Amino acid sequence: MRLDKPLPPGSTIGILGGGQLGRMLTLAAARLGIRCHIYAPEADSPAFQVAAAHTIAPYDDYEALAGFARSVELVTYEFENVPAETAAFLAARVPLAPDARALATAQDRVAEKTFLSGLGIAVAPFAAVDTVAELDAALSTIGRPAILKTRRFGYDGKGQTRIDRQKAAATALAEIDLAPAILEGLVSFDHEVSVIAARGWDGVVACYDVPLNRHENHILATSTVPSGLDPALESKAREIAAAILRALDYVGVMGIELFAGRFGLMVNELAPRVHNSGHWTLDACLVSQFEQHIRAVCGWPLGNPARHSDVVMTNLLGDGVQDWQRLAQEADVGLHLYGKSEARRGRKMGHFNRLSPRSGD
Amino acid sequence: MRLDKPLPPGSTIGILGGGQLGRMLTLAAARLGIRCHIYAPEADSPAFQVAAAHTIAPYDDYEALAGFARSVELVTYEFENVPAETAAFLAARVPLAPDARALATAQDRVAEKTFLSGLGIAVAPFAAVDTVAELDAALSTIGRPAILKTRRFGYDGKGQTRIDRQKAAATALAEIDLAPAILEGLVSFDHEVSVIAARGWDGVVACYDVPLNRHENHILATSTVPSGLDPALESKAREIAAAILRALDYVGVMGIELFAGRFGLMVNELAPRVHNSGHWTLDACLVSQFEQHIRAVCGWPLGNPARHSDVVMTNLLGDGVQDWQRLAQEADVGLHLYGKSEARRGRKMGHFNRLSPRSGD
Repeated sequence: MRLDKPLPPGSTIGILGGGQLGRMLTLAAARLGIRCHIYAPEADSPAFQVAAAHTIAPYDDYEALAGFARSVELVTYEFENVPAETAAFLAARVPLAPDARALATAQDRVAEKTFLSGLGIAVAPFAAVDTVAELDAALSTIGRPAILKTRRFGYDGKGQTRIDRQKAAATALAEIDLAPAILEGLVSFDHEVSVIAARGWDGVVACYDVPLNRHENHILATSTVPSGLDPALESKAREIAAAILRALDYVGVMGIELFAGRFGLMVNELAPRVHNSGHWTLDACLVSQFEQHIRAVCGWPLGNPARHSDVVMTNLLGDGVQDWQRLAQEADVGLHLYGKSEARRGRKMGHFNRLSPRSGD
Repeated sequence: MRLDKPLPPGSTIGILGGGQLGRMLTLAAARLGIRCHIYAPEADSPAFQVAAAHTIAPYDDYEALAGFARSVELVTYEFENVPAETAAFLAARVPLAPDARALATAQDRVAEKTFLSGLGIAVAPFAAVDTVAELDAALSTIGRPAILKTRRFGYDGKGQTRIDRQKAAATALAEIDLAPAILEGLVSFDHEVSVIAARGWDGVVACYDVPLNRHENHILATSTVPSGLDPALESKAREIAAAILRALDYVGVMGIELFAGRFGLMVNELAPRVHNSGHWTLDACLVSQFEQHIRAVCGWPLGNPARHSDVVMTNLLGDGVQDWQRLAQEADVGLHLYGKSEARRGRKMGHFNRLSPRSGD
């Protein structure tokens, strides 16, 4: 179902997933007078604390899903692993944005890379592999070192293993529990960047400035804007993003991770949702990526993505959140904490944005 | 009770009042990982939509108040007319900020002006009047035209009447229902400005830039920053604000309305809470007045009040909120809607902040 007219203030929308992204979406929606109903299986989901309503139920509880669909004007989500059956069930009842096709494309690394290649967008060399024979064949084409990843459900470095000169194909497959997989050639890149792009039901696209992203242990550590990249390359990155959103007839915000290097640009991964590398927009832009997503899915005009300040976003992982008092003292820091009770190692507990006056770029 | 140490993220605080100010306080608290429990008598209070918990009960329901006090680490409020008995009952159980003295001072126009005069701060000529004889005597001292106001519960021009040459004292007193009153001399001022000031438990004070305020029909229409006022006068206004907060041993954000004219500065009114003329801080500062209040009452370091942009805040009253779609299209506008279902005439439904790059002042 498509949305036939903009949802006025006072409407209630549904969000699948109750983590920090759902929480920040809910806070942004509240600013516009839009109420959120969060659907999540975990009883202590951080988004529940700020939402007008919530349902605690598994994603395959169709009775709960039906009640959820009846209580909202449309459904969106904070994570890409919404089961296809859940998406189809909801989409038959209310507008779902981004839609099932966006989910299907982003959930499967082979589908994603095939889609991107079909658009003429550069990606790492890749091959689908399910067996030792297929992996051996792929390794002889793609070469070593390479990365073996599960096709589905991988994030923050989980579900992947590096295959160097020594490692046998069988060992590598065992390391990812013999899951359906993709072999990707190791790309020697100079920088990781991303584009946070939005597209409305009317086809209008808006992209934020490109952040330079630094990862530690496969988890995003910082995003820096401006990125310092060649402006022509940044402009090219935004064009790639716009082409992807248009090809998917996408509605909402998408995070597109890219590698930059001697080869130019290569797309690494799509996230059909608001993205950690866009958290800087909360303090450096008039309209954050969260409000932009709400505007896009609700049929509102997209907001202005221009930044008014330069910014470095830093994630607070695990015990890093204990620094809150020191960070709250710093005059140039915007602090964001997610209301999670347990600071497990590596868990995203919050982030902070360090602002400086906008440079000329 | 005083707060003995900063409330860590994950704490729950209580807010009396569930209107737009309570709602924006709750959203700001969420950003810091602080949960809010809203206490308000109205079943459809806008703040309930975004709060972790709420209690619907009258302010004199002591059983409900006791339960509320048990569920929170401290109590603050969004409106100055919290009954003294309610404040005392809560303050005996949990820290209350701002405290009962701030409430008592701001609730009664005579107490407020007496307090200010005692600090050597200029106010309009005034006299307490309860009877026709007292009013006649006050009119002969203060002169006509003058304004007769109820001592308590007046806001947005309600509970006041102008006494010009013709009007009899008895008529004027009847117009305000013979309530205990104050007669104030009419001040011929050039500008209305305000200071949004914050003070922490540690005595640190921070003031935002001074907005120039324009009222229509006694309701705030716009706040403009920078104000265009002489910087020395702005600086003087901030000094007056700081003196007031210190004299009250105040904790939290206060809105202080002033007149500027040939006489210099004169304080018109104190609001012991976040203030409509500070709504521009939501988009033009890294830390809004709402977050500043949460930081102050929770014992956190105060945030940096510097603005990164120039801004004009405009209130959306009654049907004015129907403009949301046009306003959402404007690239320099930050839009804030309060989630109120009924757009009654003159009701504050939202506001918008129009930003421009920061000028040199």
